[in-house]
Amino acid sequence: MKRRQMHLVAFLKTGPTFHHHGAWRHPMAPLDDILRPERYEHVARVLEAACFDACFFEDFAGIFETYGGDFTTMLGKGGQINLLDPLMVLPFMARATSRLGLGITLSTSFYHPFQLARMLSSLDHLSGGRVAWNVVTSANDKEAQNFGLERIGDRDTRYGRAEETVEACMKLWQSWEADALILDKVNGRFADPTKVHATNYAGRYVKTRGPLPTPRSPQGHPVIMQAGSSPRGRAFAARFAEMIFTFQFQKSDMQAFRQDMHARMAAHGRDPRHCAILPSLDIILGETRAMAEEKRALLDSLVDPELALAITSCHIGIDLKGMPLDKPLAVLAEDVQVRGSFDILMQGMQAEKGLTLREAAQRYGTSCMAPQLCGTAQDVADQMQDLFDSEACDGFVVTPTTFPGMFEDFARALTPELQRRGLLRTAYAGKTLRETLRD
Amino acid sequence: MKRRQMHLVAFLKTGPTFHHHGAWRHPMAPLDDILRPERYEHVARVLEAACFDACFFEDFAGIFETYGGDFTTMLGKGGQINLLDPLMVLPFMARATSRLGLGITLSTSFYHPFQLARMLSSLDHLSGGRVAWNVVTSANDKEAQNFGLERIGDRDTRYGRAEETVEACMKLWQSWEADALILDKVNGRFADPTKVHATNYAGRYVKTRGPLPTPRSPQGHPVIMQAGSSPRGRAFAARFAEMIFTFQFQKSDMQAFRQDMHARMAAHGRDPRHCAILPSLDIILGETRAMAEEKRALLDSLVDPELALAITSCHIGIDLKGMPLDKPLAVLAEDVQVRGSFDILMQGMQAEKGLTLREAAQRYGTSCMAPQLCGTAQDVADQMQDLFDSEACDGFVVTPTTFPGMFEDFARALTPELQRRGLLRTAYAGKTLRETLRD
Repeated sequence: MKRRQMHLVAFLKTGPTFHHHGAWRHPMAPLDDILRPERYEHVARVLEAACFDACFFEDFAGIFETYGGDFTTMLGKGGQINLLDPLMVLPFMARATSRLGLGITLSTSFYHPFQLARMLSSLDHLSGGRVAWNVVTSANDKEAQNFGLERIGDRDTRYGRAEETVEACMKLWQSWEADALILDKVNGRFADPTKVHATNYAGRYVKTRGPLPTPRSPQGHPVIMQAGSSPRGRAFAARFAEMIFTFQFQKSDMQAFRQDMHARMAAHGRDPRHCAILPSLDIILGETRAMAEEKRALLDSLVDPELALAITSCHIGIDLKGMPLDKPLAVLAEDVQVRGSFDILMQGMQAEKGLTLREAAQRYGTSCMAPQLCGTAQDVADQMQDLFDSEACDGFVVTPTTFPGMFEDFARALTPELQRRGLLRTAYAGKTLRETLRD
Repeated sequence: MKRRQMHLVAFLKTGPTFHHHGAWRHPMAPLDDILRPERYEHVARVLEAACFDACFFEDFAGIFETYGGDFTTMLGKGGQINLLDPLMVLPFMARATSRLGLGITLSTSFYHPFQLARMLSSLDHLSGGRVAWNVVTSANDKEAQNFGLERIGDRDTRYGRAEETVEACMKLWQSWEADALILDKVNGRFADPTKVHATNYAGRYVKTRGPLPTPRSPQGHPVIMQAGSSPRGRAFAARFAEMIFTFQFQKSDMQAFRQDMHARMAAHGRDPRHCAILPSLDIILGETRAMAEEKRALLDSLVDPELALAITSCHIGIDLKGMPLDKPLAVLAEDVQVRGSFDILMQGMQAEKGLTLREAAQRYGTSCMAPQLCGTAQDVADQMQDLFDSEACDGFVVTPTTFPGMFEDFARALTPELQRRGLLRTAYAGKTLRETLRD
């Protein structure tokens, strides 16, 4: 029997500012290409050479403004800004590769299903069946205001809309039967209109009519990806997700999450093997353990303390500017608005409950929301294997610590090490992303 | 003094169905590549070799359903269906070329300015400053229903929204000053927050906040393109358009239109040289005049009569199914909903007022809305030169009769002929589309 193998997904942003807030200031970080196709084509090729299942772009349609009530710190010091619309970047990456899955974050609060369905189906055609959609509901009033809304809805409204949007998209994606396109020049038969169907979706939040003008795409519909960790988010993922991007620091938490998701999927009659559960990892690779530690120390030293505080502020949804930096983190717990991120922050700090806000923010600025694996390829492979073989996950979302250096190092040292252990494919079995995920 | 030179723009659709309804059935029309990047990359390279200023994709987000109240004929027989979302196709074409302008039709009735501004600015970066936006308001209830709206608004509402959307986009595109991005690793200064500004646009129809997360793009903002011919459409174009795509059959109508637009632009204090007025042309090229005529006859014979009637129906906005085909066209005039298209149809038929609906529809299905120039490269160049030197236009939008054959023939025979006459550039002077247009 074939050994169970990992699924690997790279976490990307447009521009150089990542979860590790020192990354863009690293001496080897290229910055002259951040607005050019070459940067994104290169990393796509590296990831395909490293046998990753897919990459995906996180997105936030704006600049975070929680800290101090404006974007001064986040923009001035470089805090997680998506400089380009990932929608426009992905086609370039599709062309530079032939097997790598291509994921994009698109919010159901700001995009209409007809538009989503048409864009994603078109890209699925043009990429030969490699598109994934990371479904997010968005949770930020300022982002909503960019789109002319007063505020973002509450969680139930947001997820209600998300469910309807995905349902409507699915109907649109099914509007053409697989053999509806005929293209018979001689008899002038372009398509079979009896095999193309109106969609007529009318929910509480969204309405569409269809059919799409786009024939059924290679995957039928894009791979659905999701990252919500609240009960509402888990319910959504159990129904739709084929990849789940998750945040836990401890193996036991990962195992509990995965078991919970499997139970929820079973309740929907879904095969748990049809959803890859992928905790986030930050990886720092060195030629020796000491060199990796040195790299980590250098990177961590490049995190601006105020930027670290600002990103913590933006992620938990409360303005920390002017807060007492030397009080224990726990005192904040009552005020927190965006529970998920804060709980992850607390989880990560649980070994040291007395951590002050200053200390916690600094850690958050270096490793954000995921365990940091630091060492040689063997060291890191050991830790990945331990999590994987403990059924804590089906693979990992890998976030960059240096870019593109970390992915280049991964391809050169960690991929061969994982392959030697039989933990990672040596070639892509199928053509589409769904075939890759189910192999 | 340099001779005044033409601007040329290619009219494209995603998929093989064009204005000439015989095009997709032509023996040399490739159909196996209609959903693949290669088709669109190839034509982009051909157009750049032909020294075109730009190409642009027309769009309609759905399948026309006016005729018979459903899509049976338009889909079954192949009537103007955009199989892929042009948004996803354009990046591939950007990568295959370095100077060709890249235009896209996006409706202000269905897209929010924040999304439009972000997508177009991103593509302007990734293409090195070559993006044009063909602003349309859409005028079809069925298309509106795809986006969940009950019906499309009246002309004033649609243009009110279009004006506000372009104003809001312009403010978003100006939200970053040109030198706001710093990227100073050593001092940790990512951007200068005092050079990035909130947009805070609040009109009657649209609202946005900004700033964009995207730095100012090479062109600052995309070239604005427009095709409205109603007084409201002309008023809009006079204010914003840098390229106008227009439909007239007669030289005198073209001259009158151009003079009217110049007067309207002057009222806005705009230099008329900053807007290229481009009537649409259908071109059929042959090695000899007889061979061109033979090609035209073949193409025309491939137009299905019912499809011709259906497209006429969809464009004028009334269901012609079951109408008396042998009554003169003029009796229809009272019922017409979409005035512009019908008037163009009547204009084209004006020499023969007694034309029946059947005859008119057949002509509409072959040449749609533009004069058809048929002959050798010399013949066609003569006609183009006559219109151009009569100040009837600043160049042309060229629609495909065969695809990509007509553009290949254009590059090989008509471009050299126009260049010999000093009517067309032999190389691109600038890098951005706006530089090309203003050269």
